[in-house]
Amino acid sequence: MRHGGDLANAEAEYGRPANGWLDLSTGVNPYSYPLAAFSDTSLTRLPQKADVEELLAAARQAYGWSPDVPVVAGPGSQAMIQLLPYLRYRKKVAVIGPTYGEHVYVWARAGHEVREVRAVRAVGETDVVVVVNPNNPTGRLSSPKGLARLASELAPREGLLVIDEAFADVAPDIAYGGRLNGSGVVVLRSFGKFFGLPGIRLGFAAGDEEMISELAAELGPWPVSGPAIEAGRAALADVAWISSMRLRLSVEALKLDEALTDAGFAIIGGTDLFRTARHDRATEIHAALARQGVWTRAFEEHADQIRVGIPGGDEAFARLTAALREAV
Amino acid sequence: MRHGGDLANAEAEYGRPANGWLDLSTGVNPYSYPLAAFSDTSLTRLPQKADVEELLAAARQAYGWSPDVPVVAGPGSQAMIQLLPYLRYRKKVAVIGPTYGEHVYVWARAGHEVREVRAVRAVGETDVVVVVNPNNPTGRLSSPKGLARLASELAPREGLLVIDEAFADVAPDIAYGGRLNGSGVVVLRSFGKFFGLPGIRLGFAAGDEEMISELAAELGPWPVSGPAIEAGRAALADVAWISSMRLRLSVEALKLDEALTDAGFAIIGGTDLFRTARHDRATEIHAALARQGVWTRAFEEHADQIRVGIPGGDEAFARLTAALREAV
Repeated sequence: MRHGGDLANAEAEYGRPANGWLDLSTGVNPYSYPLAAFSDTSLTRLPQKADVEELLAAARQAYGWSPDVPVVAGPGSQAMIQLLPYLRYRKKVAVIGPTYGEHVYVWARAGHEVREVRAVRAVGETDVVVVVNPNNPTGRLSSPKGLARLASELAPREGLLVIDEAFADVAPDIAYGGRLNGSGVVVLRSFGKFFGLPGIRLGFAAGDEEMISELAAELGPWPVSGPAIEAGRAALADVAWISSMRLRLSVEALKLDEALTDAGFAIIGGTDLFRTARHDRATEIHAALARQGVWTRAFEEHADQIRVGIPGGDEAFARLTAALREAV
Repeated sequence: MRHGGDLANAEAEYGRPANGWLDLSTGVNPYSYPLAAFSDTSLTRLPQKADVEELLAAARQAYGWSPDVPVVAGPGSQAMIQLLPYLRYRKKVAVIGPTYGEHVYVWARAGHEVREVRAVRAVGETDVVVVVNPNNPTGRLSSPKGLARLASELAPREGLLVIDEAFADVAPDIAYGGRLNGSGVVVLRSFGKFFGLPGIRLGFAAGDEEMISELAAELGPWPVSGPAIEAGRAALADVAWISSMRLRLSVEALKLDEALTDAGFAIIGGTDLFRTARHDRATEIHAALARQGVWTRAFEEHADQIRVGIPGGDEAFARLTAALREAV
């Protein structure tokens, strides 16, 4: 499956640009959380249970989960996405799409009957519903209230609602947060995107007691690295950084809107970490941008759309704007 | 399951020692590979396919695997141990024991019929054999030739031989290495133990083409962190460090033998990363050492044994020797 963020794909097609790539193909924050050097013990000792507990406490605080909600950490939310389908046996699964392709892929691969449906209200008779909120790449929002209703509808058939909140850091009002009560719902959070540290591999799953306990068992001992524990503990507890970064990204997302609109794109969705935009010649413009070293995300199934991450700083913004002018 | 290396267990029972713990409860090298600071891009970008390929090439070189043997990297060899049982359906499994407890646990948990047998020649009729080589904690060695014969016996019934070489870095002559030909055998390697960097979470699986391909699919995209890729590439390629560290550890293991023997222990096995020793009052001595802040590994099922890791340096050796004198 093709993902944003691997420049090998870009270079295979367009070669390496003289002035390097401006990689806007992901929804990763270009302003990464400033980490101190890792402590020696993070590297030279096995991760300690007490440190993991403090990481989980920081996650509960940052994500608004109550202290009694079961939580587990893994090496990226992708690791949980991989495991969830194996905790259920041959279910009917509805994935609200179009969305992050891995969800349909992993549930289908594990032998479930998977349908991609367009909206929460269209799920019909099903056991499991997967919704990405806010959605990637469309930015579609699902209200926590509506999701809670859906969860209660699934409950009688021992159903499961999976809410992938990979981009919810920049939309805290629609995060499931305090509604999470430990049954029937699993919320996934990605650490790397908002904190700009995807290389560190850290994610969380919280909610349904049985599912979280099984996830923890399948992940086994020491799934998360010492550096990830250390980075997560520091960043998730940094309330001031989190709130000022939300503000900064919201301003920069509006600047990105302007740049794309000026180039003739119509903004059709997104979050403050990326925008998805439509243009009749989107595929052509994607290629023209790539030839100038600006790598955006194209979609095979939607030739008239591109997804563009937030450029990091004035210089990167200027480079994008100039490249758009040349490309359009 | 109880493992070495989590000092919370020690502190729950004995409190925190005034002069800190000397943790000898694992087989982790106390002389960790000296890492430079991680590059920013290791943290701020998703791990790149090209970097992973270079990591796998370094692993092939270090472990003596030919370039055409399928290899996959994961966040610790434990991650592969967790997944392997799910790639086979209800098999008869023989684990050569006593050994690292996770093997029996995960295969049984996944619904296989698991027996622990005492030796390779006692496996009987079985589909899967798991052997840790050199073994932990006994240090028992299985010859590559004997293991290759076992693999060929398993082949007609589409069997599988899993060789966990977590401690083979200090016993390169008995590593399966160049015999690995891509069918019927999976070799696991742990990066963290020999390089003294278990917190980084890195391990490898190599061999059987179908199994490695399925492992890669189950691990999904980006299972290994940027810091792990960077550390692995540097350390696995450092031939001079590897060979001088082997020599150093072999000398220090002999010093450890002397300290334990002087204290009345009989050395019954081990590798150059740990020794397993017997004493009628082993449980009592383990507790007396713990009260002095020296944490060794005791075994519920073998009250007359302890496992002791290599103390890191003269001061640590002196502390162990003094504590042993006091304890015995």
